[in-house]
Amino acid sequence: MNNQTLKLRRVAIDTYHENVAYLHRECAVYRAEGFQALSKIRVSASGNRILAVLNVVDDEAIVTPFELGLSEQAFQQLNACADCAVSVDHAEYAASMDAVRRKINGERLSLIDFESITQDIATSRYSKMEMAAFLVATGQNSLDRDEVYFLTRAMLETGQRLNWGELQVVDKHCIGGIPGNRTSMLVVPIVAAHGMLIPKTSSRAITSPAGTADTMEILAEVNLSPEKLHDIVRRHRGCLAWGGTARLAPVDDMLISVERPLGIDSQGQMVASILSKKLAAGSTHLLIDIPVGPTAKVRHMRAALALRKLFEYVGDQLGIHLEVIITDGRQPVGRGIGPTLEARDVMQVLENDPVAPADLRQKSLALAGRIIEFDPDVRGGYGFAIARDILDSGRALAKMNAIIQGQGAHEVDFTPGRYCHEVKADKAGVVSAIDNLQMAKIARIAGAPMDKRAGVDLVRKTGDAVSAGDVLYYIYAEFMSDFEFAEKLVEQNNGYTIGEKTDVNKFDAFM
Amino acid sequence: MNNQTLKLRRVAIDTYHENVAYLHRECAVYRAEGFQALSKIRVSASGNRILAVLNVVDDEAIVTPFELGLSEQAFQQLNACADCAVSVDHAEYAASMDAVRRKINGERLSLIDFESITQDIATSRYSKMEMAAFLVATGQNSLDRDEVYFLTRAMLETGQRLNWGELQVVDKHCIGGIPGNRTSMLVVPIVAAHGMLIPKTSSRAITSPAGTADTMEILAEVNLSPEKLHDIVRRHRGCLAWGGTARLAPVDDMLISVERPLGIDSQGQMVASILSKKLAAGSTHLLIDIPVGPTAKVRHMRAALALRKLFEYVGDQLGIHLEVIITDGRQPVGRGIGPTLEARDVMQVLENDPVAPADLRQKSLALAGRIIEFDPDVRGGYGFAIARDILDSGRALAKMNAIIQGQGAHEVDFTPGRYCHEVKADKAGVVSAIDNLQMAKIARIAGAPMDKRAGVDLVRKTGDAVSAGDVLYYIYAEFMSDFEFAEKLVEQNNGYTIGEKTDVNKFDAFM
Repeated sequence: MNNQTLKLRRVAIDTYHENVAYLHRECAVYRAEGFQALSKIRVSASGNRILAVLNVVDDEAIVTPFELGLSEQAFQQLNACADCAVSVDHAEYAASMDAVRRKINGERLSLIDFESITQDIATSRYSKMEMAAFLVATGQNSLDRDEVYFLTRAMLETGQRLNWGELQVVDKHCIGGIPGNRTSMLVVPIVAAHGMLIPKTSSRAITSPAGTADTMEILAEVNLSPEKLHDIVRRHRGCLAWGGTARLAPVDDMLISVERPLGIDSQGQMVASILSKKLAAGSTHLLIDIPVGPTAKVRHMRAALALRKLFEYVGDQLGIHLEVIITDGRQPVGRGIGPTLEARDVMQVLENDPVAPADLRQKSLALAGRIIEFDPDVRGGYGFAIARDILDSGRALAKMNAIIQGQGAHEVDFTPGRYCHEVKADKAGVVSAIDNLQMAKIARIAGAPMDKRAGVDLVRKTGDAVSAGDVLYYIYAEFMSDFEFAEKLVEQNNGYTIGEKTDVNKFDAFM
Repeated sequence: MNNQTLKLRRVAIDTYHENVAYLHRECAVYRAEGFQALSKIRVSASGNRILAVLNVVDDEAIVTPFELGLSEQAFQQLNACADCAVSVDHAEYAASMDAVRRKINGERLSLIDFESITQDIATSRYSKMEMAAFLVATGQNSLDRDEVYFLTRAMLETGQRLNWGELQVVDKHCIGGIPGNRTSMLVVPIVAAHGMLIPKTSSRAITSPAGTADTMEILAEVNLSPEKLHDIVRRHRGCLAWGGTARLAPVDDMLISVERPLGIDSQGQMVASILSKKLAAGSTHLLIDIPVGPTAKVRHMRAALALRKLFEYVGDQLGIHLEVIITDGRQPVGRGIGPTLEARDVMQVLENDPVAPADLRQKSLALAGRIIEFDPDVRGGYGFAIARDILDSGRALAKMNAIIQGQGAHEVDFTPGRYCHEVKADKAGVVSAIDNLQMAKIARIAGAPMDKRAGVDLVRKTGDAVSAGDVLYYIYAEFMSDFEFAEKLVEQNNGYTIGEKTDVNKFDAFM
């Protein structure tokens, strides 16, 4: 309790969304306070206070016994200058951890509970451990639909919210899991060409072989300042930018940073994450795509329906016009998997190239059509035809080119990676299944998304007849080591099932 | 996937039970692999492999772009020399995280699941986040009694197990929460004087104002090598040592390091923690003390009974002879709270000093008597009288002095802290309640256990009549700042309730 002061030092370690403080083992304060490693301490300087997890250091090159070191983000958050005087203290738990403990205990939490939790997370009062505790306690089916609504609202309240000054701001979101599913890059130009405002921001790939931001980056700059993004949207009614700079719903990003390494995933958290991000981005009308298939994120129609109803309930509570479309997720969409190959597919569809992948075109038109029907002037059921007219007439391509120019065009070259491996059918028959997870894994091992030209290019899709020795797909890589690794993986499991024609179910039948 | 090698560097940061790796932001491997901060990576060197959480560094004084830094314990675990070549890789999740996710999902886990989890924790394959996920998933009432048994057995299997080579090795354990409850320091000499083997190791205070190890340290050395400890036990049949060096049930220590900062606590985990530690220490006969009271850990008799049955069930499965005693936990035991003051109480009882606290004596005799009845030669019901004879005759004191000499006697001075504050009754009446939690807090704020002489010395106990102005207790501190802080705390709540004689319930009635 002897409130001795220390000199503040910035320690150039990026501990991501966790504040870490470094004290030397010989530091008088550390010794007197009886802190334990992993203790949470309160650091105060010039009227500001932050909480941080303690790491103990034995190297004076990192901190001396007279200094307190803070990791990058902790240093920024304390907002004090290096070398200024800081004092440290035992930290109480973040008050809202009581609510987390009540949730662990099986209680239902209120809106106020969720607000105090997200507030504490947003101000970095939670350690990674505490965020993990919150995620597990609220994971699986432990949140009822009102709690999902409360969580979404609380996450929304902790961040900024964009206002586009228009009555209709539309967006689409796919829950993910299907390689090659680059519909946003077709939906945005079609919908924007219809005149609707669709300011689309996307993520980069995290566990997949390509995100929309990675693929769009083949064609144009995606890392845009908020000012530039607004300018492009106002001029062209749409954009295809990376959402990383926006800092919307910051709590969502922080929770995801813990959720992902844990590999935990719950429907409630997914719904809260998606809706808080979309509402923060100013969307008023949202189309959600839930692909269903044996190797998709959602594997059964009944699960898809339950998820749809949860989206609808929470969306209604929050006053967003939300529709859910359940799509065929039994195999990858399009041919290419990997940024360059997917960008090529997208441009083929926009250019009405006869070799363009028909499934990517059809799915994109279906989604764009549903969004166009958000327009009160469009008669129910006419959206698809309008979308098709926009695409067939070349207006979608013109709009895409305008957006590309606006964001900053990249010199485009769709040449795939230098190493190519042909994967062939070992017998005659019909392709009865393509494993989304395995195809994504092969493309990642081959180097996607880091190596833009790496990935997989599908030649046959489900239902196609093949003879023994026919090429099923190509693998492309930029580096020999990746290439060999991918070849080895394919030897174990090439992701294709060759069966009889009767093995191929219709999408409806599968449900 | 380009398996470039880096130079290993030891980074002198103590990240406790979590392996942390440090890569420079400009490091080619970091850039190529697309690691995210907080990613888990696999580090390989000379045939050894460890998993570590990644921190990204911008300071070449910590690691250069050609080095991989490892925190202290990660460096030790990899067991490779500094400057040797290491390679890094994306790490798969620890395989047993699947079982944790199944538990989150509400499934019941098998012995094999718990074994793979504890094995992965013991080999540092879990991050703090993953341990938090496991603790929350298995917290509260989510483990049935067989799962508690599986967890205990799995924790036991990951560590060493002592074998004393005797048929009976006795021990006692209190679940904690009652200040001043230093019965072990009386039970050990009494039971050892009876001739039973009682190799007692204790913890230091973590959230309490004194642990048995802190209090014993006033009298003797407690930090003993395993060899010395064995020697003392063989010679004197007992010891009172700090258990920190033993490395028994290491998974328990690692889980506690996460559990404590989270402030989560479950009966299943407590039972597994206590029993795995005791069995690893070689105990064959164990007495568990569960104090019950409104400010104790267990607040109702029905909860104490449920906990007793859980202890009994798991103990029986593991083949330890276990008995549970439910004791009066409505107020602190003895007078002193804090290492020096508690050591004084203990010695007064051993010396049969007429001012010795009667409740500490009575409770210790009751516990020692029950343990003595583990002796097959002692007739049921005669344990208490045997214990009392040992204490009254001075044999317990002689045994204690022998143990103190064996461990290494400290020069003893029971003078309390230099600053003294008298807390007085503000009205006449009868002390009807003393708040364990508040008294512990006051003692800690005053400086205990770091300042050995700091703490609280109770003058009145529950049931005592007081006049207005009578001293209820003294607060002692070594430092003025602590002293003033404690005075302030007492002004808000001095922990005592003064009421009518009829307010004082009997222990039975309270139940």
